[in-house]
Amino acid sequence: MAKSKYEYVKEFEKDDKMLQNVFILVRIDGKGFHKFSAAHNFTKPNDERALHLMNKAAQTVMKELHDIVLAFGESDEFSFLFRKSTDLYQRREAKIVTTVVSLFTSAYLYFWNDYFPASQRPKYPPCFDGRAVLYPSEEEVKDYFAWRQADTHINNLYNTSFWALVDQGGLSPKDAEIRLSGTDSKDKNEMLFTEFNINYSKLPAMFRKGSTLLREMVAKPPKGEPTEDGSTEETPGNVETKA
Amino acid sequence: MAKSKYEYVKEFEKDDKMLQNVFILVRIDGKGFHKFSAAHNFTKPNDERALHLMNKAAQTVMKELHDIVLAFGESDEFSFLFRKSTDLYQRREAKIVTTVVSLFTSAYLYFWNDYFPASQRPKYPPCFDGRAVLYPSEEEVKDYFAWRQADTHINNLYNTSFWALVDQGGLSPKDAEIRLSGTDSKDKNEMLFTEFNINYSKLPAMFRKGSTLLREMVAKPPKGEPTEDGSTEETPGNVETKA
Amino acid sequence: MAKSKYEYVKEFEKDDKMLQNVFILVRIDGKGFHKFSAAHNFTKPNDERALHLMNKAAQTVMKELHDIVLAFGESDEFSFLFRKSTDLYQRREAKIVTTVVSLFTSAYLYFWNDYFPASQRPKYPPCFDGRAVLYPSEEEVKDYFAWRQADTHINNLYNTSFWALVDQGGLSPKDAEIRLSGTDSKDKNEMLFTEFNINYSKLPAMFRKGSTLLREMVAKPPKGEPTEDGSTEETPGNVETKA
Amino acid sequence: MAKSKYEYVKEFEKDDKMLQNVFILVRIDGKGFHKFSAAHNFTKPNDERALHLMNKAAQTVMKELHDIVLAFGESDEFSFLFRKSTDLYQRREAKIVTTVVSLFTSAYLYFWNDYFPASQRPKYPPCFDGRAVLYPSEEEVKDYFAWRQADTHINNLYNTSFWALVDQGGLSPKDAEIRLSGTDSKDKNEMLFTEFNINYSKLPAMFRKGSTLLREMVAKPPKGEPTEDGSTEETPGNVETKA
Repeated sequence: MAKSKYEYVKEFEKDDKMLQNVFILVRIDGKGFHKFSAAHNFTKPNDERALHLMNKAAQTVMKELHDIVLAFGESDEFSFLFRKSTDLYQRREAKIVTTVVSLFTSAYLYFWNDYFPASQRPKYPPCFDGRAVLYPSEEEVKDYFAWRQADTHINNLYNTSFWALVDQGGLSPKDAEIRLSGTDSKDKNEMLFTEFNINYSKLPAMFRKGSTLLREMVAKPPKGEPTEDGSTEETPGNVETKA
Repeated sequence: MAKSKYEYVKEFEKDDKMLQNVFILVRIDGKGFHKFSAAHNFTKPNDERALHLMNKAAQTVMKELHDIVLAFGESDEFSFLFRKSTDLYQRREAKIVTTVVSLFTSAYLYFWNDYFPASQRPKYPPCFDGRAVLYPSEEEVKDYFAWRQADTHINNLYNTSFWALVDQGGLSPKDAEIRLSGTDSKDKNEMLFTEFNINYSKLPAMFRKGSTLLREMVAKPPKGEPTEDGSTEETPGNVETKA
Repeated sequence: MAKSKYEYVKEFEKDDKMLQNVFILVRIDGKGFHKFSAAHNFTKPNDERALHLMNKAAQTVMKELHDIVLAFGESDEFSFLFRKSTDLYQRREAKIVTTVVSLFTSAYLYFWNDYFPASQRPKYPPCFDGRAVLYPSEEEVKDYFAWRQADTHINNLYNTSFWALVDQGGLSPKDAEIRLSGTDSKDKNEMLFTEFNINYSKLPAMFRKGSTLLREMVAKPPKGEPTEDGSTEETPGNVETKA
Repeated sequence: MAKSKYEYVKEFEKDDKMLQNVFILVRIDGKGFHKFSAAHNFTKPNDERALHLMNKAAQTVMKELHDIVLAFGESDEFSFLFRKSTDLYQRREAKIVTTVVSLFTSAYLYFWNDYFPASQRPKYPPCFDGRAVLYPSEEEVKDYFAWRQADTHINNLYNTSFWALVDQGGLSPKDAEIRLSGTDSKDKNEMLFTEFNINYSKLPAMFRKGSTLLREMVAKPPKGEPTEDGSTEETPGNVETKA
């Protein structure tokens, strides 16, 4: 194509390559999912179908982007960890973040009907936003996931207690909030057990600890004769949910 | 929620506010749409259903994000212009770009069945990427859209000629490419007219010039009695396709 | 030079080109100039020699960097405005900011002795820091300089009042501060006039309004015969202090 | 100070905090030092006075900025390595880079007369520019300094050979260049030895390997009684030139 006199506008695009040799973490969040989950009658405090759909969307992202080594999801958010050495899209930030967000959103819609068979599609198109964060060391990455998992625990224990008070205890949301104000984890665990016969630690791990997706490296399958070099090969389909 | 000892990892997020008082332009592009359009038998050189679906997705974005004043689409790309003064998400780049891309993707899937009724959903989840570009002056914005429209014209004239040679002229893709090599616009126009009886300028404007979406400002409808202040009110539904 | 295996480290440098077609403003500030001015017995509230040295340093910067069209100085700070269209160092931020800061610092030391002839050099090396800010429109640029000039006025009126109370009024710094607390501009003007016989508006403009340096464009001097094209030519030496 | 209506212009400043927990490397370079060294008759290929002045300026920077742990200089450039954990100026890029550049420049002028006693000051104010680069790992930092040191070696061997040919061999600069074209290190070493009786490896290490400045940690001096914790204390004055 001939260069047009307008093409100078392309020069205004900025270079957004991310620093090399640091971990890239992309976190996406549902936008307005309080409203979205209410509109679709998601079970409270956790909707298994919705969580599995989130996991399915995350798996779709991981199957497409091979440099993601780990993902963690809870509620309406998911975090994706890229290997330090990734050169995906030359580490251009907008390209990486928007591709993750778009693939995730696309898969969420695409597989909706598999998890919510009663409705062909949601009542309106849901939306996720995303951002990239750089972490230089493994310690920060570990702490990042510890942070999200602590968040999962605290939120889920609160929500479980709240909805027990409302659904089984008959309290108004306002009264449930007041009742829980100032309580710590031990208080909530006891209340759940004593008043509602709920053993919190027996609830599904996915609710209490979120979902972790790991890229598995499996031994290269023999072709004709056995390999002896111990080399491994990625099995893209072999993404496993640890809940 | 109590502050956890892990929360320091949040400090690694960077501030990505975009410069104030300049136009924000977000352009999204289909990823691998050669493959996607082939897999779904999109009509060549233009598939009206696919273009209308793109427009529908863009309208969905504009209805949600009120500070977009103009959008332009062609093929598998769409550009969204935000007003200079927008303070959407405090002008945070990742937030704005990912929201546009996610909403667009979501709507593309959501409305797929309205434009491709034969299939409930695409064969696989499509994906779009996106980026933001800043333009300080109206002149650059005008030239940006002139650039995309020139691109539309050049690509469409080429594609129309190419597919006429292949579909009607019986040439192989390779031979069609050779035949068109070195030709200018005038040559292609003449060839289309003389050999294939196609008057290029009579083809649908949407094919030749892309789709422009404008936010319309309409007079406030009277409520009980006439308004006299001449104030206007946005009618979000009133997005109009100028093709 | 042969490429060495270490050269990959150069890839870690980031592209820091600033957005095109917006004004670049570089502001530099003295670091720890309270201490520096005390150590060198700068006259309070204003030291003419020190201010003229600042102006001299700023002129040196402007003579070297032709795309600076305007500069404004007060106290230990100076602001330099580059023309919108400048392509100096391809608009690389660090290059531009460090060059301005280094040239300014260098000139400050270089000309020290011209303004403080009693000492060959300062008691220790002074230091300035700097930053670049982008302004898309002339209105912001105007307001930027109005902001700095308002700052000059407010600070100088306060300092003039404070030192009148201390030096002529015999108050302790603490008491002078208490005396001025809660006063507005009118109060200070009156106090200066009534108690110390100082007509504030008659003080040197450089103290009250700061120093403005403008790049002058002068008519091209005739060479043999008169030019008729009305062309102008920059006279680098002709930088003028408007105080 | 009362907030003025102009203060909104401050909002245009961008946040330029650098990623945490990575090494910050600031490199400064003399601008136009070919001309500067010619104007001051610097000895070719190396001027000891000029190199020692560079080292003195770098020491001044290190004495002021305690988070610099290592510096390396050659010719008219100097690199400063900050510890990973530095929170100097909250890691703001412009603040850090301009402070290093300004302090260096200031010290270069300040101490000029100590190294060039014949002239009170240079013929015109010299200038340095600078930039910051981030390095996540120690390996890159090691390779960075290896890169600069390899550069020192290659340049110095070339320059030593070149000036031997010109000054002792009587060749024109042009002919010297031709003579050296295509030669490798071994060729140059031999030529120096055979033709000019110069044993390259016996030249001062500062010429061949540049100057390394290390911040020394020394045992805490006992106060009254001996410390037994083996704690160390920084001795800012104890910066040592390893050449």
